[in-house]
Amino acid sequence: MILHSQPNLRDILFTVQGSIVPAIIGRLAVIGAVSVIAVLAANVHPGIFARISAIPFTLIGIALSVFMSFRNGTCYARWWEGRQLWGQVIVACRGLARASADLDAAERRDLLVPACGFAAGLAARLRRQDEGAAIAAWCPGAETARHPNPTDAVLQQLGRHLLALAAAGRIDGIRYSVLEGYLAQLSAAQAACERIVTTPVPFAYSLLLHRTALVFCVTLPFALAGSLGWWTLLPVLLVAYTFFGLDALGHQLEDPFGTAPNALPLDALTRTVEREMLAALEAQDLPEPVPVRGHVLS
Amino acid sequence: MILHSQPNLRDILFTVQGSIVPAIIGRLAVIGAVSVIAVLAANVHPGIFARISAIPFTLIGIALSVFMSFRNGTCYARWWEGRQLWGQVIVACRGLARASADLDAAERRDLLVPACGFAAGLAARLRRQDEGAAIAAWCPGAETARHPNPTDAVLQQLGRHLLALAAAGRIDGIRYSVLEGYLAQLSAAQAACERIVTTPVPFAYSLLLHRTALVFCVTLPFALAGSLGWWTLLPVLLVAYTFFGLDALGHQLEDPFGTAPNALPLDALTRTVEREMLAALEAQDLPEPVPVRGHVLS
Amino acid sequence: MILHSQPNLRDILFTVQGSIVPAIIGRLAVIGAVSVIAVLAANVHPGIFARISAIPFTLIGIALSVFMSFRNGTCYARWWEGRQLWGQVIVACRGLARASADLDAAERRDLLVPACGFAAGLAARLRRQDEGAAIAAWCPGAETARHPNPTDAVLQQLGRHLLALAAAGRIDGIRYSVLEGYLAQLSAAQAACERIVTTPVPFAYSLLLHRTALVFCVTLPFALAGSLGWWTLLPVLLVAYTFFGLDALGHQLEDPFGTAPNALPLDALTRTVEREMLAALEAQDLPEPVPVRGHVLS
Amino acid sequence: MILHSQPNLRDILFTVQGSIVPAIIGRLAVIGAVSVIAVLAANVHPGIFARISAIPFTLIGIALSVFMSFRNGTCYARWWEGRQLWGQVIVACRGLARASADLDAAERRDLLVPACGFAAGLAARLRRQDEGAAIAAWCPGAETARHPNPTDAVLQQLGRHLLALAAAGRIDGIRYSVLEGYLAQLSAAQAACERIVTTPVPFAYSLLLHRTALVFCVTLPFALAGSLGWWTLLPVLLVAYTFFGLDALGHQLEDPFGTAPNALPLDALTRTVEREMLAALEAQDLPEPVPVRGHVLS
Amino acid sequence: MILHSQPNLRDILFTVQGSIVPAIIGRLAVIGAVSVIAVLAANVHPGIFARISAIPFTLIGIALSVFMSFRNGTCYARWWEGRQLWGQVIVACRGLARASADLDAAERRDLLVPACGFAAGLAARLRRQDEGAAIAAWCPGAETARHPNPTDAVLQQLGRHLLALAAAGRIDGIRYSVLEGYLAQLSAAQAACERIVTTPVPFAYSLLLHRTALVFCVTLPFALAGSLGWWTLLPVLLVAYTFFGLDALGHQLEDPFGTAPNALPLDALTRTVEREMLAALEAQDLPEPVPVRGHVLS
Repeated sequence: MILHSQPNLRDILFTVQGSIVPAIIGRLAVIGAVSVIAVLAANVHPGIFARISAIPFTLIGIALSVFMSFRNGTCYARWWEGRQLWGQVIVACRGLARASADLDAAERRDLLVPACGFAAGLAARLRRQDEGAAIAAWCPGAETARHPNPTDAVLQQLGRHLLALAAAGRIDGIRYSVLEGYLAQLSAAQAACERIVTTPVPFAYSLLLHRTALVFCVTLPFALAGSLGWWTLLPVLLVAYTFFGLDALGHQLEDPFGTAPNALPLDALTRTVEREMLAALEAQDLPEPVPVRGHVLS
Repeated sequence: MILHSQPNLRDILFTVQGSIVPAIIGRLAVIGAVSVIAVLAANVHPGIFARISAIPFTLIGIALSVFMSFRNGTCYARWWEGRQLWGQVIVACRGLARASADLDAAERRDLLVPACGFAAGLAARLRRQDEGAAIAAWCPGAETARHPNPTDAVLQQLGRHLLALAAAGRIDGIRYSVLEGYLAQLSAAQAACERIVTTPVPFAYSLLLHRTALVFCVTLPFALAGSLGWWTLLPVLLVAYTFFGLDALGHQLEDPFGTAPNALPLDALTRTVEREMLAALEAQDLPEPVPVRGHVLS
Repeated sequence: MILHSQPNLRDILFTVQGSIVPAIIGRLAVIGAVSVIAVLAANVHPGIFARISAIPFTLIGIALSVFMSFRNGTCYARWWEGRQLWGQVIVACRGLARASADLDAAERRDLLVPACGFAAGLAARLRRQDEGAAIAAWCPGAETARHPNPTDAVLQQLGRHLLALAAAGRIDGIRYSVLEGYLAQLSAAQAACERIVTTPVPFAYSLLLHRTALVFCVTLPFALAGSLGWWTLLPVLLVAYTFFGLDALGHQLEDPFGTAPNALPLDALTRTVEREMLAALEAQDLPEPVPVRGHVLS
Repeated sequence: MILHSQPNLRDILFTVQGSIVPAIIGRLAVIGAVSVIAVLAANVHPGIFARISAIPFTLIGIALSVFMSFRNGTCYARWWEGRQLWGQVIVACRGLARASADLDAAERRDLLVPACGFAAGLAARLRRQDEGAAIAAWCPGAETARHPNPTDAVLQQLGRHLLALAAAGRIDGIRYSVLEGYLAQLSAAQAACERIVTTPVPFAYSLLLHRTALVFCVTLPFALAGSLGWWTLLPVLLVAYTFFGLDALGHQLEDPFGTAPNALPLDALTRTVEREMLAALEAQDLPEPVPVRGHVLS
Repeated sequence: MILHSQPNLRDILFTVQGSIVPAIIGRLAVIGAVSVIAVLAANVHPGIFARISAIPFTLIGIALSVFMSFRNGTCYARWWEGRQLWGQVIVACRGLARASADLDAAERRDLLVPACGFAAGLAARLRRQDEGAAIAAWCPGAETARHPNPTDAVLQQLGRHLLALAAAGRIDGIRYSVLEGYLAQLSAAQAACERIVTTPVPFAYSLLLHRTALVFCVTLPFALAGSLGWWTLLPVLLVAYTFFGLDALGHQLEDPFGTAPNALPLDALTRTVEREMLAALEAQDLPEPVPVRGHVLS
């Protein structure tokens, strides 16, 4: 995730890092080249281009704006929901710590350390990294490897721990239901994260918008070259920058758990869980928060 | 559901599978033919076409964009809600497994195996396949056939099992309420899925948009033929592709539990439930996850 | 509610039933007549009409599209929420059946039969039919007539039944809270349905849109007649069809519990509740589901 | 709240009551006068006006439509949420009645009569009327006057009553939690209503839209007068009616608890609570429902 | 937060305080200067400017409106959610007071005074002020300083207090779960506020809109100067005012917990919590509500 103060005039003009420009520079170059061809052609055969009507471009431009706005809204909603779900993970872990404060240190450790393992495993799972290793760093002996869903296996183990505490009379039925409620929150957050990762925006939808935007930007210079001459480049590139940029940004937000600069800072969120769980366990040396490196929080 | 990486330039230009083009190729051909007629007519009687104003097309085009965007947003919301509901099914099944971990193997099997039957029955019900057979594969002796809603009958049977466990003192009242809460989640997910299947977007609405889009695309070439000549084909087909494509895609998403390529992968989701429930029961041979065949997950 | 397969080309061109055309045919005829007058006048005094600028029509047309889209979205949301609430009624009744499965037959009948009465009473209440009679068909001796809200009186009676069961030790406190939770769901669904029925979209809002749409469609032919001649009729009627049709459809969806063809199928939903409750009571002859008559489910 | 049947043609043309016209008649007159000046000036100096381009008006008109639609949607959402919250008040009061049905008459009266006081106090608080008096009418001896929030003080008193009932063994812990849950619903509804009343839509936002709409409508006649002559008045007034009307309507809906004709009928909603609570207490003479006076329900 | 009555005509024309103008006056001056240059250049070389087509400006203007509306809606949603979360804080604190009314004065003080500390700490944390000092003012001896999240440490301490009350038999298990439920609400509100503060709208998105708006407004005068002459200034400044104003306002709402005039009144909200908790503790001298100073509530 990119952390940046409100951009001033210089930022607006020159910022590259955090901008979407690097992701679309190739396509912009293609459109620029097409524009040059269009202007050259218009200078040679001005008659042809005078006939091109602007109406269809206005029509398609408006339709594109409306539909791309819908797609962008959808992708942003996925990204924001992803962040909400990780907030829910943090809330549930804090609840586990709060409602287990009177247990023995060992009993509590068996509750809060696996919670760290859950967060680490979920982050690895969502990023398609080594889920088992991430969990094993916190739960060394856990037999999660053979489970089809290792991160959920951590929750199942936590559930067994709660049942054992209840069976031993360490917590009563009500407290069991309160703590199980926090596990249910973690489980719901996990399944919703999995939904976002495994269910992209329908492919036909993205493809339709990609195609329309591409044809639109490729043909636009031919409509403008007749009247604008070399000035054609300015509006065409601005339009292409806007449409391609929003398209590329939507694509980055569509997968909020990836490693693109605009993706969610799962490392930092996992570290937050770890620090607070270890503090609840009165650990002496807490790991440092994940630092921001060059405006990017990973 | 179609799983496809971010399309590159070649994909954008040539991808057919996963595209919406096959669903609308007939309508595009009609519009193409009408465009040819319009251009030929404009060449013969240029005077008539010069009078056609572009204003009504801009007006109707904008109105169409706005309303089609609304319909698309609605259909997408149905599709996404369908996926959320199946996520809820998965969460509730995991919760059943977690909160029943200290029961006997047989008691637990009577809880988790019917959960698989519920998922299989729900998938068959939503796809209008043989619901009873899908359930019977997991619950052989279940008398669900005579029930007006066999899938709910599985839940009713699970509810009786919980009441029996409580009556036998195997679980206390609180645990009963926790487990019953997960059944209630399954029931809510089922009823919401049934709502989506049985309640289409109002027919008059779809019909109105179909009609307006068709008349719009059929008359558009006559407005452009006078000034664009044979170039008319390009914008008309692009506009028709966009509007018909979004219309067809909206229609596919409207029924998220169907068997169109963009429909939800109910087979894969059901298999996920089965694998995790069987793993919780410590079954030896888990069924394989449903494979992706040619970018399509069923 | 209209159930219709995806319309094919013939449906798009000729379907009347389920279409919104019958509701707006009068207004369309008026606009057609005005258009004829405009064309005749333009032929007599062509000078006047040449001056009419198209700009204000574009402006107002876009504003109308945006605001009518908002109103339509709002009305659709009311309709869809109405359907969700009836789904909640079904879920809660299923929950009552599930969590009462171990009671005596008589105790259970006193729970599930009034639930049918609740559904029937709610449907009658929302359609402003004879609420008392609908309830009395299921709860003959119920003294609900003098209650200001007979349908809620059924819930109050169910609440007393639960309290009596708890007082008699037939259910413990936890089970009481589970069952009361389902009554609370029914109560919430009822109050939300009442909200939709008693709180229309602000009248000034509908009036403003009606007025703007009418003036827009009445004046549009005068703007087009000068350049389009008799072709004026085509775009004017298409625009009027779109705007009036969406307006009329929005009005139908605004009251989702009415008896318009696009209204929700309360009869069928009530019947679903009845069939499932009677099946839970092991009744022998279940009433048949409500049939679809000519694409309409009532 | 205005209750009116679907407007027919005469209503659309002539209805004043319930219309937004009275609220904007002054501004419309100003715009009309400016239009007259513009036309006169255009007749005197036709050359000046011919130069005015229509492009910026289209641009600003579209932008205004989009942003005003957003503001209107926001204000409508506040209004609708206000109605939902009062529905929640009704549901919670019905729940209090339902879950207290087996208490003594006096115990129950101390629960349900203060609930009426809560509703009356909340209505007065939201309308900035005499909150203390409204509460005292139902809870004569209540020491709510010195509390910073008298309506919440009623809830606090109800909470103490529940705790006393539990301490006296009249209700068990579970029932306490069920009844406390209904108090929590009332408390949440109150706080959300307070949020709507105390947190207007950001002032800078309303001001920006007011200013843009005003300058737009004041300058529009100068753009049209050159070509339309006296016909300028028709589109300008229609545009002004639409934009000012939506602006004024948005402002009315922004404060849903006020006393404007389109505000929510708090009197009627409070009366609904009173009637149902008194009916639950088996009172003989229920107050009449609030009548609709001249299409307005207060 | 700015509290202001509905602006009248004079307010609309002259209000500065609460307006967004001061935040964008610099950019408006730049655009004004560019416009003057454009008009001067158009007077010298009229031929160049006659060629500039209006089509791309309409296109980009519409796209900008649609996307800026999306960004504004998103920022407003953050602001409104922030206010909802503080309403949730108030509701939870009231619930703590209500459900603890029968405890000893000291026991209750240890519950409600830290609740004030929580609210004060959360406000300081969200405004990046001295969180520890804000908490220490209410919880002098609290060892929250070494905790990675001091405000959550207050909640953890409250949780331990509840567990101690339950262990001492002062509250039963059910009451513990009710009170813990209110702590969970506080915790959820805190985490959601932290989410809003730490997760800005994706930077690339803001940058893209800033850039497009700037280039659009800088080039617009060149498109209009040829036909409008010195009148160019009026529409250009109006367009710039609208786009820059909405952009700046969106930026202010994006961080709802800041200290900009349109930010949420955290001081007043915290004071509301303090006053009501102290009133519940029957304190004699309640602090005064935060006054509105010059239309601004801090």
